[in-house]
Amino acid sequence: MQKSFEVLAIDPDSKARRARVTTAHGIIDTPAFMPIGTQGSVKGVSPRELRELAAQVILGNTYHLFVRPGLDVIKHFGGLHEFMNWDGPILTDSGGYQIFSLAKLRKITEDGVEFQNHIDGARAFISPEIAMEIQAALGSDIVMALDECVPYPCEYDYAAQSAEMTTRWARRCKEWKQENAERPTPNAQIPSDVAASAVLSGQFSVQSSCAPDALRTAHTTARQLLFGIVQGATFEDLRKTSAQAIVDLDFDGYAIGGVSVGEPEREMMRAVESAEPFLPRDKPRYAMGLGTPPQLLEMIARGMDMFDCVLPTRLARNGTAFTARGTLNLKNAEFALDKRPMEENCSCDVCREFSRGYIRHLIKAEEILGLRLITLHNLHFYLNLMRQARSEIERGTFDQFRRMFVAEYKPRDTMTVD
Amino acid sequence: MQKSFEVLAIDPDSKARRARVTTAHGIIDTPAFMPIGTQGSVKGVSPRELRELAAQVILGNTYHLFVRPGLDVIKHFGGLHEFMNWDGPILTDSGGYQIFSLAKLRKITEDGVEFQNHIDGARAFISPEIAMEIQAALGSDIVMALDECVPYPCEYDYAAQSAEMTTRWARRCKEWKQENAERPTPNAQIPSDVAASAVLSGQFSVQSSCAPDALRTAHTTARQLLFGIVQGATFEDLRKTSAQAIVDLDFDGYAIGGVSVGEPEREMMRAVESAEPFLPRDKPRYAMGLGTPPQLLEMIARGMDMFDCVLPTRLARNGTAFTARGTLNLKNAEFALDKRPMEENCSCDVCREFSRGYIRHLIKAEEILGLRLITLHNLHFYLNLMRQARSEIERGTFDQFRRMFVAEYKPRDTMTVD
Repeated sequence: MQKSFEVLAIDPDSKARRARVTTAHGIIDTPAFMPIGTQGSVKGVSPRELRELAAQVILGNTYHLFVRPGLDVIKHFGGLHEFMNWDGPILTDSGGYQIFSLAKLRKITEDGVEFQNHIDGARAFISPEIAMEIQAALGSDIVMALDECVPYPCEYDYAAQSAEMTTRWARRCKEWKQENAERPTPNAQIPSDVAASAVLSGQFSVQSSCAPDALRTAHTTARQLLFGIVQGATFEDLRKTSAQAIVDLDFDGYAIGGVSVGEPEREMMRAVESAEPFLPRDKPRYAMGLGTPPQLLEMIARGMDMFDCVLPTRLARNGTAFTARGTLNLKNAEFALDKRPMEENCSCDVCREFSRGYIRHLIKAEEILGLRLITLHNLHFYLNLMRQARSEIERGTFDQFRRMFVAEYKPRDTMTVD
Repeated sequence: MQKSFEVLAIDPDSKARRARVTTAHGIIDTPAFMPIGTQGSVKGVSPRELRELAAQVILGNTYHLFVRPGLDVIKHFGGLHEFMNWDGPILTDSGGYQIFSLAKLRKITEDGVEFQNHIDGARAFISPEIAMEIQAALGSDIVMALDECVPYPCEYDYAAQSAEMTTRWARRCKEWKQENAERPTPNAQIPSDVAASAVLSGQFSVQSSCAPDALRTAHTTARQLLFGIVQGATFEDLRKTSAQAIVDLDFDGYAIGGVSVGEPEREMMRAVESAEPFLPRDKPRYAMGLGTPPQLLEMIARGMDMFDCVLPTRLARNGTAFTARGTLNLKNAEFALDKRPMEENCSCDVCREFSRGYIRHLIKAEEILGLRLITLHNLHFYLNLMRQARSEIERGTFDQFRRMFVAEYKPRDTMTVD
């Protein structure tokens, strides 16, 4: 089996890495930002637009899809890729985070979590094994182990017990995968260009390195990458213990969970810094659920590779655009006669075609096109920031780039990640 | 000045015409459907998508744009085309219809209409001359005379007096245009391809017939086409008198107003049939604010050339898709597992890429992408119906096509045009 992760360059002045994750649906260049497709759609954006934005991977929310439309529907359509017409990589979370933040009447036991969903109150139960089964049925390229994400603040004893249970749950996920390695996944189609190039070339260079393996094992869970999740709240020793225990189980990648849950930024950085030294360098690292543009660069400098965040899509729906100088709230009257694009010198289609004044009008008039245009620009901004980061790492200039970007970026509006 | 209207073919078995309107921003092939861009945006759709749908003309609502963002803003941006980044033809209504249907505390006098807008209640006054000034400032390619659109039902005497006033208002619009023929319009840019082809070819064939004139007079109101509006409610003699009086004033085109305002379909047809014989054959005819797909074909058979209707965009937002067999309400549970496209054999991008089941999920989950996808399909459906009509007229088979289409089309959901 070829490697699913290759480090291509390391920044000399930080822990930043330029790397590549190979999945059944294609390659993810890291550092990578994953737009969030909560309910089988990145809010307001079509799959074609995601491809045009050069998004390489999207995140699907297992809990939301499990509740609606339900697993039977997605299975019937041949998995999540087919259902939503996205043929690139998909990472799905385990559903745990939403159970803990959205669902009602939760009951957590060693076995799993019982809950009532937030849509119609129907009872359901998710265990580590069931989380794996669901993600196998969705046909995700990267699947996450079930974890408990504790709130902030959290008492030490609870955080410690919870992190230990998360480790036991992670072991059960890993065991499920080993026992079900030959289980077919519904839809892990080989991208036609990969299959074609594999057939045409007759051999497999580094560029097409995913092809032979994909051809052999595309339709089983063995091809899904399984990531374990480090917990431990804001306690350095718990983060360390959790990281060591999760790494001992040997996953395809490691996520830092339980960050960006309301703690001060300094605590978030410390949680990552406490766990990172214990994560292997030859596996991808995913900092879950964050953050602002400067936070992403700070996380990259601390050795993180993958990110997901609602900010670019959620703030867009509120009329807020990202720029390298900070955010703009386009509802403000100051933009009514502003002929400039949302971000000057931005290369995105929206900034080449539409003015701040027009977009402000659309937002004030509650026209859907307004939030669409800001969403497209914001996703471009995040994806482009990752492209810049990759290029700066390759050139060995990432740390300088990070410092300059963070200094220039002025947070003008309160931004909470939830 | 070259002709702004050419009839290219006439159906042997009906009054249907295949024709072409030439405007400062390009050609409109008729019969034509005009998507409605109420507030400077066709709801949920980008200008690029409109171009991809091959929409040749859109309609802008003067009242809505006058209220928000206001004329000063649109003037500042160089007119409506520039503001919304649409370089094709735009027809604007006079604002009258919305004043009568949306605004508060209306006071109609011979002079004009005083009203309070529905957004912030600010007082405003629109006269025939002001309606022309506003549309000149917007830079519309086709401007509509100010009329009074009476409700249904309407007493004979009121309808008669109102139609007479509409005629006097129409004369004032015409006079305003004559007196202001050299007034610059802000933005009637020559489409670059038209200008380029004019320069390259060195002469002007029928295909590029708009070029020399556009080059000469693109920036004055003289280049705007002015349409008069026939009123007369549901009374045959009033429709006839109104048509004769409006035609006597000699407009660039004629609209039938006051239809599709709640009257039975038979009354709507009669209103058009009563006016049509008095409209000149060498000018375009626009049936305002309608209708269902069969109604459009019936109107074409009665000699109408241009249409605008909220149905394709408004019903889309309610989860309803148009097909040649009638409408589908995608909220219905029957579509949950349906892998077929909204319309089988439809050539639109949405039907080639997405299933009914997926779109149903998006609508149920209130995902914006759902209404976007249905909107795009519905606009394609209406625009394609007009393409088919044009082609059938050219072949001399339109009347048969109309009869077959109407027989096959089953209205499943109640559809009101308002």
